[in-house]
Amino acid sequence: MTTMGGQVMEMELWLTDKETEHFKMQYRVKEVLYRDRSPFQEIAVIDTAEFGRALFLEGVIQTAVRDEFIYHEMLVHVPLTIHPNPERILVVGGGDGGTVREAVKHPEVKRVKMVEIDEQVVKVSRQFLPELACKLDDPKVELHIADAIQYVKHVDEPYDVVLVDSSDPFGPAVGIFTEEFYGNVAKALKDDGLMVAQCETPFYTPQLTRDVYRAIRRHFPWVRLYTASVPAYSTAPWGFMLASRRELENPWPRRELGFPTRYYSPEIHKAAFALPPFIRELLDEGEGR
Amino acid sequence: MTTMGGQVMEMELWLTDKETEHFKMQYRVKEVLYRDRSPFQEIAVIDTAEFGRALFLEGVIQTAVRDEFIYHEMLVHVPLTIHPNPERILVVGGGDGGTVREAVKHPEVKRVKMVEIDEQVVKVSRQFLPELACKLDDPKVELHIADAIQYVKHVDEPYDVVLVDSSDPFGPAVGIFTEEFYGNVAKALKDDGLMVAQCETPFYTPQLTRDVYRAIRRHFPWVRLYTASVPAYSTAPWGFMLASRRELENPWPRRELGFPTRYYSPEIHKAAFALPPFIRELLDEGEGR
Repeated sequence: MTTMGGQVMEMELWLTDKETEHFKMQYRVKEVLYRDRSPFQEIAVIDTAEFGRALFLEGVIQTAVRDEFIYHEMLVHVPLTIHPNPERILVVGGGDGGTVREAVKHPEVKRVKMVEIDEQVVKVSRQFLPELACKLDDPKVELHIADAIQYVKHVDEPYDVVLVDSSDPFGPAVGIFTEEFYGNVAKALKDDGLMVAQCETPFYTPQLTRDVYRAIRRHFPWVRLYTASVPAYSTAPWGFMLASRRELENPWPRRELGFPTRYYSPEIHKAAFALPPFIRELLDEGEGR
Repeated sequence: MTTMGGQVMEMELWLTDKETEHFKMQYRVKEVLYRDRSPFQEIAVIDTAEFGRALFLEGVIQTAVRDEFIYHEMLVHVPLTIHPNPERILVVGGGDGGTVREAVKHPEVKRVKMVEIDEQVVKVSRQFLPELACKLDDPKVELHIADAIQYVKHVDEPYDVVLVDSSDPFGPAVGIFTEEFYGNVAKALKDDGLMVAQCETPFYTPQLTRDVYRAIRRHFPWVRLYTASVPAYSTAPWGFMLASRRELENPWPRRELGFPTRYYSPEIHKAAFALPPFIRELLDEGEGR
C-alpha cells in the first residue's frame, strides 16, 4: 500500500478464469496463499474477496469456501437419498474433501473410499481448506492415492454409489469423461448401484453434455441430468449426470436427511431434475432422437 | 488487424461488468454497434462474441439475444399462467420489447400497456434488437413513453397483471424498488391481480431481496420468490418476486401454453419456486421471523 498525492493506493490483483474463449470471470485476490506445481498440475489456493479461500487447478476454480456447499450437497445427497441403502461409497477424485465430508453425514454409509490421483491436492486442502478436508480422517473414510481410472478397472467388492468428483476434462481428468471409464464404473457397482458424475455446464459445453450422456447410456439403462447453480463456477447451472444400473421409477428422495443442509432439501432435489426444453433437446440428441 | 513476425494480431476488446466490487464478468466485444447518452442514461448495444447483441445501460448488461428467452419467458409466463384470466397487462419498463413479445403470445391477453421512461431505449431496440422489439407494434400493444413510477399513481382502469421489467436499482429505476411504488401497483390491480418484479440475485444482493420482499409484503398478502439462471446476467440465479392481491393456494400454472417455449415449461414453473434453505432464511428474516 502506497500513497499518491495523499490518496491511499492499493495494488489490485485479479485472477482471470475463462468461462469460454469469449467470456471471462475475474476474482479479486486478497492473497495468494499457495502456488506450486505437483507431478500432475498447477495447484493454487487463493484468498478471494468475493468467495473466500478457493482452490484452483491449472488456473481453473475447483471449489470456494463461500459456495462449495451447493456443489457438494447436490453431488452427494441426491444419489444417497435415492439409493435404498448406500453403505459402500466410492469417491473418484474429490481431493479437497468436500464430497467425503457430506457422504459421512449419512448414517447408512459405512465405508467411503476416496481415490485421488494427486496427493498434493489433499495436503494443500488439509492445510488451507479445513472446512472441506475436515472429515478425511473420519473412521469411515479410506483415502487411497491412485489413479481412479485404473482403480475402477479392478474393484473386488462392488460399491453401492460411485461419486465422480473430478476436475474439468483436461489434465489428469481427461480419461474420466470417456465411455471406457463409465463402463468400468458400471462394473464396480452392485446391481442396484448408482453413479453421479459432475459434467460441466449444459449451456456452455452442450457437446460435452451430449457426449457424456451418450457414453453413460451405453453402460447404464437409466440416466438423468440434474443441475444446480454454483456462483463461483459459472454463470450457467452446473450439470450432474445420475446413472442407475437398474431402471428407476423416478429420481425422488426415498428418505429425509437427519442433519441440516444449506442448499439441499427434498424440494430442491426434485426441482433440480426439471430441465428447460432447450436442455432437454440436447439429451434427446444424445439419445439419437 | 496487423501482423507481427508473421503472426496475425487482432485487437482484443473486452467489456467489463462488475457483478460485485470483487467479482467481474468480461464480455469479448465483436463490435460496438451503438453508444449514446439519453436524457436518462448511457445506452450501448454491443455485439458480444459469447451472447450475441446485448443492450447495456450505464455499462450494465440488460439483455442479450442468446439467452434473453430465459428471463422474458420466466418473467411473463409464470404470472400469466397463474392468473385465471389475464386480459389487461401493464409492463413497467421493458424498453427492449422482450416482455411485450412474450405477453402478446397469450390468447387471453387483450391489451398490453407498456410504460417506458426512455424513448431512446425503445428506438435503439427496434433498430438493433428486432428479435426482442418485434411485437411493439402488435395491435394489442399500447406504448406509452412516461415515468411508470408516476403512471401507477393514477390508473383509471385496473390491470390483471403488472410485469415490472425494470433495470437495476440505480438511475431511473431507483424509485421502482420502494414500498411506495409497490403500494401504487397494488392499487392499480384488480382484486385478483398479480404483480411480478425482477429483483436481482438473492445470492449477491441478499439485503435487496429481503428489503423488496418486506416492502411488497406490506401491500400484498401473498408473496413468493422464484428464480431462473440467466447466464449473461450473473453467476447466481436471478430473482423474481411474485405478489398476489389475494391469498393463493399455490403458485402452480392453471393452464398449459399453446405455443412453444425454450426455457419455460409447467415443470420448470414449479421447480422455480423451490428455494434452497439459505435463501428461504433470507425471506424469513424479511418476514421478521
